[in-house]
Amino acid sequence: MTEQTASWRVNFRQTASYQIRKAPDIFHPNNRALSSPGRKFGDRRFVVVDQTVFNTHSDEIRTYFTSNGMDAKIVTIPGGEENKSVDNYLTILYELDNFPIHRRDEPIIAIGGGVVTDLVGFAASSYRRGIPHINVPTTLMGYIDASIGIKTGVNFNFQKNRLGAFSPPLQVFLDRAFLKTLPRRHILNGVCEMIKLGLIKDRGLFNLLEHSGEACIHSKFQDETGEKILDRSIYGMLDEIQPNLFEENLARKVDFGHTFSYGLETIPDGDLLHGEAVLLDIAFSISIAHKRGLLTGAEIERILHLIDQLGLPLDHRGIDARRLWKSLEERTYHRNGLQRVPLPAGIGECIFVNDIAKDEIQAAVNQLEEWTVVKHAEIR
Amino acid sequence: MTEQTASWRVNFRQTASYQIRKAPDIFHPNNRALSSPGRKFGDRRFVVVDQTVFNTHSDEIRTYFTSNGMDAKIVTIPGGEENKSVDNYLTILYELDNFPIHRRDEPIIAIGGGVVTDLVGFAASSYRRGIPHINVPTTLMGYIDASIGIKTGVNFNFQKNRLGAFSPPLQVFLDRAFLKTLPRRHILNGVCEMIKLGLIKDRGLFNLLEHSGEACIHSKFQDETGEKILDRSIYGMLDEIQPNLFEENLARKVDFGHTFSYGLETIPDGDLLHGEAVLLDIAFSISIAHKRGLLTGAEIERILHLIDQLGLPLDHRGIDARRLWKSLEERTYHRNGLQRVPLPAGIGECIFVNDIAKDEIQAAVNQLEEWTVVKHAEIR
Repeated sequence: MTEQTASWRVNFRQTASYQIRKAPDIFHPNNRALSSPGRKFGDRRFVVVDQTVFNTHSDEIRTYFTSNGMDAKIVTIPGGEENKSVDNYLTILYELDNFPIHRRDEPIIAIGGGVVTDLVGFAASSYRRGIPHINVPTTLMGYIDASIGIKTGVNFNFQKNRLGAFSPPLQVFLDRAFLKTLPRRHILNGVCEMIKLGLIKDRGLFNLLEHSGEACIHSKFQDETGEKILDRSIYGMLDEIQPNLFEENLARKVDFGHTFSYGLETIPDGDLLHGEAVLLDIAFSISIAHKRGLLTGAEIERILHLIDQLGLPLDHRGIDARRLWKSLEERTYHRNGLQRVPLPAGIGECIFVNDIAKDEIQAAVNQLEEWTVVKHAEIR
Repeated sequence: MTEQTASWRVNFRQTASYQIRKAPDIFHPNNRALSSPGRKFGDRRFVVVDQTVFNTHSDEIRTYFTSNGMDAKIVTIPGGEENKSVDNYLTILYELDNFPIHRRDEPIIAIGGGVVTDLVGFAASSYRRGIPHINVPTTLMGYIDASIGIKTGVNFNFQKNRLGAFSPPLQVFLDRAFLKTLPRRHILNGVCEMIKLGLIKDRGLFNLLEHSGEACIHSKFQDETGEKILDRSIYGMLDEIQPNLFEENLARKVDFGHTFSYGLETIPDGDLLHGEAVLLDIAFSISIAHKRGLLTGAEIERILHLIDQLGLPLDHRGIDARRLWKSLEERTYHRNGLQRVPLPAGIGECIFVNDIAKDEIQAAVNQLEEWTVVKHAEIR
């Protein structure tokens, strides 16, 4: 760089890393996980907790910080997609700003599902242009997906995650015990993301779900196979996102199930969970893949059988092809002008396509109708 | 990274660079500066323009995009610190979201002073977790300071720049002609940042301001020496921030003049410009530096003479030591628990101190009172 010139160039490089670590019994006063990152004397912690989690764990949480000599300000936020709002983002920031903390060595802590960790991550990324944050996922979706990556965000203008930041956490602490009290519907919600991973990149995970999925759902992943499946899901997710954390490459395998689902999650008064919308997207996508000769009839049978066996919900009422097409159009803007839709090519592999047509989507909607009619007929 | 483990580590590295380039006659239809970054066919541009700039240049701006075959959506934002608000940040995002653009190759364009480039930069950093943006500064403060770095932000909870992001621009285009129509007060506003740079790191710039500052202010930096001083200021700023873009090191020379000024800019109903607050901070700081033996009496004379000669405003009415102390306390949180206040040690050098006491600030306030009384007496 020189002084007198017609132009200057500023170069920069940022390197960093973060750790995802198992920390069972996380609120035990002697567990150093939550108290060790950051400064040690006279320190303060700003903690945002999912309302439902706090209802169950408030005493433990308060005792943990008190007995570790920390002045903790605890704020609760209700879970649920409708609470992932700009209003809650600003509420967190007001509370934080009125409880001053040091900019670098008093990390803020998020304890909850994806809604809470996404909200807190975005708030942390924008407070004083970025302060450190720690994630403690309490849902299955958070444990294997939302809390372990660097994507944060809030819904805006009726669009999911329209605002947000790539904001790596300082650390992620995993305590599987939170899953014990999770309602069955929220366990299944996370299982849908496991099926996604199995289908597009890990045939072994798919096999595991076929053999042990039912038992794991029953034990809420507290048994040994449950831990194995959790670990394999985390590994698969990190293996996929680590080389492409900032999405320089917009063709992402983990976007399987995240093309048509996008528009399904923002249906007014709809109440699909994220994983439920992803599963519907998977159903439409495998139908398209089948018609294109990417999946055999036997593979389709296997996938539908797994969905049925695990009791996963495929409720397609109120979904028409027009809505799915609009969602694809939106994702095409997001993927910079190309569809880049991942489709499975056999179980455990995938390819990307850019030419899905309206009538293929209509056919997929009709196909899902047939599949579920057959299923309902069988049940009767 | 392995599958079965008690912890995983995610490593990442981001490299990038951006260019700051002179682009005179920027709205001439044949000037490719604004039209060249991004895609070439059927492209769209979202453009945010300072209201005052748009009042003068609306025809040129519209014609520029039309004649370059671009569908431009133009949004105007009034300048002034009170408009650097969360409301305007969200307004920009609503307008942007309702004018869809590709995520990667249709950069949004900010044309204005620091308020507009800071607002747009923060909006760009958070829309879809980051889209590219281009800065075109139209004020002297923007030209040599606000638009050329990577700091973006908005005011929040009565605190300046409390929310924001480190968000490198895709490019910065400089057209010195904008300064021609700038009111004298806004020219002086930028000159205060030049004095800051001269004092803490560039004695040559300080000398240039002594010899040619008056003439440059008169010509609004349109003459040859004006260009030399502008270039030297940009070079000095970039030289300082490039190795520390993300502020890993919180002891920053460019924070000279930005410790006590912070609280002065948020006085209710106050109307100090940023540079005016910085100049007051400089006055307090050199007084403290003088008392600590870091500046000689002759150096103080030289600095005060330059301020006087250039007609820079030192209006300290309504400022008491308590407010300055509170501002220092706030900046201490921002600088992670240490004051890290830069003080000049001779003209063109600086050191950092962490032990400024309340009574030193009171003495500095009294000293400024004396200096300005002497000045007023001399004028009479």
